[in-house]
Amino acid sequence: MSRHLCRRVGAQLTRQNNFSAARRAYSSPAATTFNWQDPLSAKSLLTEDEIAISETAERYCQEQLLPRLEEGYRNEVYDKIQLEEMGQLGLLGATIKGYGCAGVSSVAGGLITKAVERVDSGYRSGMSVQSSLVMGGINEFGSEEQKQRFLPAMAQGKLLGAFGLTEPNHGSDPGSLETVAVEHPTKKGYYNLSGAKTWITNSPIADVLLVWAKVADPSKGLAADGTPKKVIRGFLVERKNCPAGTLETPAIKNKLGLRASITGMIQLDNCPVPVENMFPDVQGLRGPFSCLNQARYGIAMGVIGALEDCISRARTYALDRKQFRGNPLAKYQLIQKKLADAATDAAFGTLAAIQVGRLKDAGGEAAAGLPDMISMIKRQNCDRALQGARTLQEIFGGNAVSDEYGIGRHVANLFVAQTYEGQSDIHSLILGRSITGVQAFA
Amino acid sequence: MSRHLCRRVGAQLTRQNNFSAARRAYSSPAATTFNWQDPLSAKSLLTEDEIAISETAERYCQEQLLPRLEEGYRNEVYDKIQLEEMGQLGLLGATIKGYGCAGVSSVAGGLITKAVERVDSGYRSGMSVQSSLVMGGINEFGSEEQKQRFLPAMAQGKLLGAFGLTEPNHGSDPGSLETVAVEHPTKKGYYNLSGAKTWITNSPIADVLLVWAKVADPSKGLAADGTPKKVIRGFLVERKNCPAGTLETPAIKNKLGLRASITGMIQLDNCPVPVENMFPDVQGLRGPFSCLNQARYGIAMGVIGALEDCISRARTYALDRKQFRGNPLAKYQLIQKKLADAATDAAFGTLAAIQVGRLKDAGGEAAAGLPDMISMIKRQNCDRALQGARTLQEIFGGNAVSDEYGIGRHVANLFVAQTYEGQSDIHSLILGRSITGVQAFA
Amino acid sequence: MSRHLCRRVGAQLTRQNNFSAARRAYSSPAATTFNWQDPLSAKSLLTEDEIAISETAERYCQEQLLPRLEEGYRNEVYDKIQLEEMGQLGLLGATIKGYGCAGVSSVAGGLITKAVERVDSGYRSGMSVQSSLVMGGINEFGSEEQKQRFLPAMAQGKLLGAFGLTEPNHGSDPGSLETVAVEHPTKKGYYNLSGAKTWITNSPIADVLLVWAKVADPSKGLAADGTPKKVIRGFLVERKNCPAGTLETPAIKNKLGLRASITGMIQLDNCPVPVENMFPDVQGLRGPFSCLNQARYGIAMGVIGALEDCISRARTYALDRKQFRGNPLAKYQLIQKKLADAATDAAFGTLAAIQVGRLKDAGGEAAAGLPDMISMIKRQNCDRALQGARTLQEIFGGNAVSDEYGIGRHVANLFVAQTYEGQSDIHSLILGRSITGVQAFA
Amino acid sequence: MSRHLCRRVGAQLTRQNNFSAARRAYSSPAATTFNWQDPLSAKSLLTEDEIAISETAERYCQEQLLPRLEEGYRNEVYDKIQLEEMGQLGLLGATIKGYGCAGVSSVAGGLITKAVERVDSGYRSGMSVQSSLVMGGINEFGSEEQKQRFLPAMAQGKLLGAFGLTEPNHGSDPGSLETVAVEHPTKKGYYNLSGAKTWITNSPIADVLLVWAKVADPSKGLAADGTPKKVIRGFLVERKNCPAGTLETPAIKNKLGLRASITGMIQLDNCPVPVENMFPDVQGLRGPFSCLNQARYGIAMGVIGALEDCISRARTYALDRKQFRGNPLAKYQLIQKKLADAATDAAFGTLAAIQVGRLKDAGGEAAAGLPDMISMIKRQNCDRALQGARTLQEIFGGNAVSDEYGIGRHVANLFVAQTYEGQSDIHSLILGRSITGVQAFA
Repeated sequence: MSRHLCRRVGAQLTRQNNFSAARRAYSSPAATTFNWQDPLSAKSLLTEDEIAISETAERYCQEQLLPRLEEGYRNEVYDKIQLEEMGQLGLLGATIKGYGCAGVSSVAGGLITKAVERVDSGYRSGMSVQSSLVMGGINEFGSEEQKQRFLPAMAQGKLLGAFGLTEPNHGSDPGSLETVAVEHPTKKGYYNLSGAKTWITNSPIADVLLVWAKVADPSKGLAADGTPKKVIRGFLVERKNCPAGTLETPAIKNKLGLRASITGMIQLDNCPVPVENMFPDVQGLRGPFSCLNQARYGIAMGVIGALEDCISRARTYALDRKQFRGNPLAKYQLIQKKLADAATDAAFGTLAAIQVGRLKDAGGEAAAGLPDMISMIKRQNCDRALQGARTLQEIFGGNAVSDEYGIGRHVANLFVAQTYEGQSDIHSLILGRSITGVQAFA
Repeated sequence: MSRHLCRRVGAQLTRQNNFSAARRAYSSPAATTFNWQDPLSAKSLLTEDEIAISETAERYCQEQLLPRLEEGYRNEVYDKIQLEEMGQLGLLGATIKGYGCAGVSSVAGGLITKAVERVDSGYRSGMSVQSSLVMGGINEFGSEEQKQRFLPAMAQGKLLGAFGLTEPNHGSDPGSLETVAVEHPTKKGYYNLSGAKTWITNSPIADVLLVWAKVADPSKGLAADGTPKKVIRGFLVERKNCPAGTLETPAIKNKLGLRASITGMIQLDNCPVPVENMFPDVQGLRGPFSCLNQARYGIAMGVIGALEDCISRARTYALDRKQFRGNPLAKYQLIQKKLADAATDAAFGTLAAIQVGRLKDAGGEAAAGLPDMISMIKRQNCDRALQGARTLQEIFGGNAVSDEYGIGRHVANLFVAQTYEGQSDIHSLILGRSITGVQAFA
Repeated sequence: MSRHLCRRVGAQLTRQNNFSAARRAYSSPAATTFNWQDPLSAKSLLTEDEIAISETAERYCQEQLLPRLEEGYRNEVYDKIQLEEMGQLGLLGATIKGYGCAGVSSVAGGLITKAVERVDSGYRSGMSVQSSLVMGGINEFGSEEQKQRFLPAMAQGKLLGAFGLTEPNHGSDPGSLETVAVEHPTKKGYYNLSGAKTWITNSPIADVLLVWAKVADPSKGLAADGTPKKVIRGFLVERKNCPAGTLETPAIKNKLGLRASITGMIQLDNCPVPVENMFPDVQGLRGPFSCLNQARYGIAMGVIGALEDCISRARTYALDRKQFRGNPLAKYQLIQKKLADAATDAAFGTLAAIQVGRLKDAGGEAAAGLPDMISMIKRQNCDRALQGARTLQEIFGGNAVSDEYGIGRHVANLFVAQTYEGQSDIHSLILGRSITGVQAFA
Repeated sequence: MSRHLCRRVGAQLTRQNNFSAARRAYSSPAATTFNWQDPLSAKSLLTEDEIAISETAERYCQEQLLPRLEEGYRNEVYDKIQLEEMGQLGLLGATIKGYGCAGVSSVAGGLITKAVERVDSGYRSGMSVQSSLVMGGINEFGSEEQKQRFLPAMAQGKLLGAFGLTEPNHGSDPGSLETVAVEHPTKKGYYNLSGAKTWITNSPIADVLLVWAKVADPSKGLAADGTPKKVIRGFLVERKNCPAGTLETPAIKNKLGLRASITGMIQLDNCPVPVENMFPDVQGLRGPFSCLNQARYGIAMGVIGALEDCISRARTYALDRKQFRGNPLAKYQLIQKKLADAATDAAFGTLAAIQVGRLKDAGGEAAAGLPDMISMIKRQNCDRALQGARTLQEIFGGNAVSDEYGIGRHVANLFVAQTYEGQSDIHSLILGRSITGVQAFA
């Protein structure tokens, strides 16, 4: 299956252009020396398929995505064609088995996100939403009919998704969400959705929006106010079927990070959705949390790509830039320590992410406690990638302010990666609860 | 003198608009409680004049500058009218005695920068260049004729300045600058300047550019290549007198910080400058370093203004935002620690800056080691302001990415403040040298 | 008054030995250079009296205390003669007016603690308990008769005190203390005290123990269990009057820090105390908290003395020790940064402590919020002193393990200073509460 | 082979005492929950043999070593019987193949050090010197005769070793060592060794001391002073053969860390050593550096054991200790964050150490850059273990000062682990050199 993906990727790229050898992606240093790009030889833990997938993803990202980035980041322009390209290469929903998806390992899926995030966290965010949050959600909780209806087109990047959980007043605490779905007063088999979601990656361009809303469930008894208790359910809102005025997805502009991705709101005003578009079984926070878990794994691996790009850029700058008696910056102890720290965090973070991917795929007892494991690597890798990027930024001095060096962009992006899908402190409390058995959220 | 300034400031503002009471600026809390805006009562160390200057500067900044900021930062628009306004209020070159300047204390000068930087570090940068780097330089090193020719108009903001020291290949190590001034081949009493300067705040709008260049000085003997040794001298390049093609000052766009200021290059190609525009006596790095010292003092006080604005914004957000069982974020320990840390750094940093201002004005033996003292407070206050802003940014979660909350802007700005006019590590080595007597630059 | 103290100090020392000029204590560097021992010229903020007191205290500490330290720390030996010596010099309870005390400023009092803690935090702890916690408590809350009975002998170091608040199960939360005082069943005018206190500095050698206990107060109504509510009151337990078996004060040995101080428990078993030995008015936590506040101020200034000693030792080591091509360690960037960081924290912390001392003495509105101010400087100076000491410890490499270099001892001591009289996190929450108006303790 | 070890270990322990089930060592939590003791399931990467070795080593350490620790640490007492016990269990030189050694994997060897260091870093140091520095050195560089003569007795703990590299004036820079070996003036086939070594673990009890000294090598040409150049060679000094007065190994007392190990000097005064006791081939720093590399691997794994013990102790304390409204400390956010941070570092560090162990055993191209990899994990794991231990220490408040809680001991020990066998900054510069290709040592 993944072999197939590789062939597709390779063929595709060959058709597209004549590129020189990929600039990076596990290029071999001389065999007897330390490889600063992979200090602890994470590559030795990968299968041949995974290496091939990683290399082709890296190649696509460096050859195709990187050239578009400067314009995209400066002007907050996101060209959705790139999702279609990724789809053609088999990179979307790649860990899903069947439904036109590649069915690769979790680690391979992570290496794809790493390749994309080496270019830009915004591009990776756009892909993560499609692959993990929406396709992953449908694959795990959708009915067979839903899977067949949505997944193949999404895998090709022809149908785009968005994930509507966060609301203006409810970020870290989604259990308090206020969006509701009520039975349509006249149209049988339909729910009317009303509410607002915000900070939704891809919402302005999405064709299908996975919206989490509360639905009255009389079987749960009555709430304090005498009405039936409500449960959280997932709805696949198809834009093409929404009557005018019931769905708006305005873009949020002037962002201070992830400017190369597109972000918006979802505003629902009695938007009718057929019951066939509701996830059949999953109730409560288990649904969205499981989707987030998939995505968080990708982030944990992805941010290391951004950090590695910062290391590479900073190293090059430090070797090229001469200050004081003609020495390169690389000659100075304070500079070397910054590089050593960042390289260590990248190496350790990669190993941890690979390990969790292996346990995830092993499943069963091996994967016991998986959500906590993912909290641990999402938190740590985001924290360390952000810290590393900030420290490396200092090497550039005033030049860091110029967007051509790329470092300031990574710093701004990684702050967002640290805060979304579980802000760092929230993950600290998740871990603290699991370590102690006592919750400290409130 | 400063009384006079206050009256001018007050009258000016009253003419301009009917404002409500200033939102901040040492507003009194109930007398028996801790004042989170001034935890260690720095106000008790100020004279009445200084308090009055601070309050009027704060008022102007909050009333006049703040409303322009969003547009300015988003679109990298800088309206030089604000320098004229500041000039009308007596805020430019305010510590200079005579020549139409207010002649206030160094602490009062610092409080002005703090008021401006509470709004935006970019606005403060524009003012610092005018007040400290250029006016300060002319006041210290200019001939009496130069002072009279330039300072009064600059104090009014009608003549704008820029400071040309940093070159593309020489940031932290200005001693290696490559711009040269050679005697004009035909025009007696003129030098031809050639070279390039970069990251020059205000250069695109400046009328007079203080350019540091190397000039052959036969009295110093010969260099290794047989030509006379060169010394660094300062030249006041007046744009209006530069023949076409000899001076270009292109703006640098798409900056990742200080977007509300204007920054550019200075490109000199055999630009003729009369010897009357050269500083008469100062030679070597003492000239530019002395100017930088003035500016660094302003930065040390100014960045605390930005940090205090972050604290105020984060505190408000933490009180307004509810998560988990309806508690405000302010109820959570991890949030409170962030606020406590930042408030402490702001309070300590303010006291240190006041102390150094006092020693500066006392002069003589009291000011022994002043450049090192300024290195210490510039480094520490920039480092802590940046660190504090970043930590407080986490309180906003995903909302930090929206520019309406202002926090991300301060974070991006403060990185620049940390790196310009002596990157943090450079100041560490300056201090290390003074502590140990051994230099470790190279 | 403080003049008198100085004379006494001077005369005393001259009698004791022929010392060379004090090695430190604001020794003048060449006037034109940076003074690494006082980078921001805190000395310029002191009165002549304060300088004189500081110098004589430093001299006593370096000449008399330092030589005893190695033995004391190694073997946990504390010679109470040193309190008597300090008393002879007027250093005990020095800020108290009258009752044989020197009546110096709070800043002068702080400089005394700084001089002692430059030698060892344990020695300073022993003095703080005597001066601030017990004498300070008696001065603030004692009856006139109690003051006259205890203070003069305590000021001379002939009567030693201990402060019994912390209990084995109640550290950060003293409001839950369990020690009780009940009316003596037969002896009129007596209370029987029962309970246990732990981590009590000086308890094994104390003559008078200020014990905080709960007493039934019928005027407060009934508690949930039907008994009268209880209030916290302070009792001066005089060891010489305690019947055998009613008071035990075993020493705690094998401590990992503050080994040069003596620490113990207080075990009370129906220990009879006359009502004349109870503080007449103060009730609740206001009593002990006010005493702690006095002591915390001394700690905030004192720990800077320890940090300064670390800087001095590390600087000397770095200049003397040669590694790699014969360079002193001081030549290396990573070393210089450690020194610069620590020197900055010492300088900033000193200024903040002086400022709070001035506000404390000014009283009235100036001292509004004083307990929070003291929380701020106690927390920050302890945190930074500990951090600085740990970082400087790295300069010594393996030699840091040898007690002759003194650095490891300071590290171990400063951890205790950070944790006692309000652990750092507790002060964060005190500050957070004052900044936000919301408590987050529980 | 390792099977054999396990049997031996098991039999030995059964004979020794009736122990309850080991308290820890990969005990299974409920299968469906997060295992705070092994958050990322490092156990899943181990072979059955490795798990068995780890469990038996943990059992021995907890049952036999832990009870001796308090006395040993307090009084600096080291009972060399424990090395004999370890030898009987096959734990010494365990990764060596043949010569009576167990021949287990590098990871298994690391798990043994982790088990010992979970008890105390000093105990682990004593073992590391025997196993890695001396036995490892003999195994790698010794002649066949030397191996047969020394290794079997050392494996049984009947012959104890010490490693003499560091000199009083040469710590981080061993290339400058001053100990010399000169041909004996009269005794053919003998060298006379003279010089001093310090901070030598086990030296006072060692039977054989591996001493690195400089020997004239005429084949290398002449030095600047006209004498033949010298090369570093390794000598196995047997105490029993040293004439009186030629070898002294005084113990260093009053250490501030690693007090449960024994440390001393080696003083050589024309000590005659036969040429048969010199390593036959290895010259220069390659010899000692290779030995250090072995030991550093053990440290990288070992310190995680100490960190895990800190986590376990802090977690227990946080659950048992109640403060404020009867809540356990574990209920507070600031406490949970400390635990989460430390657990993450332990988990990441374990995975990295396992990975490097696998590459080490794979050898060949897989192990390219191995010394740098070991620098990376030694530095990071020591830094993070020390940082984690210090942060967790705060949870104990004042009780941390009592040695019964064990936390302060780990803090003091881990500082030493961070500094010996390559101080953290030195490893930063080793890594910086490998990343940039430029050295910044001097």
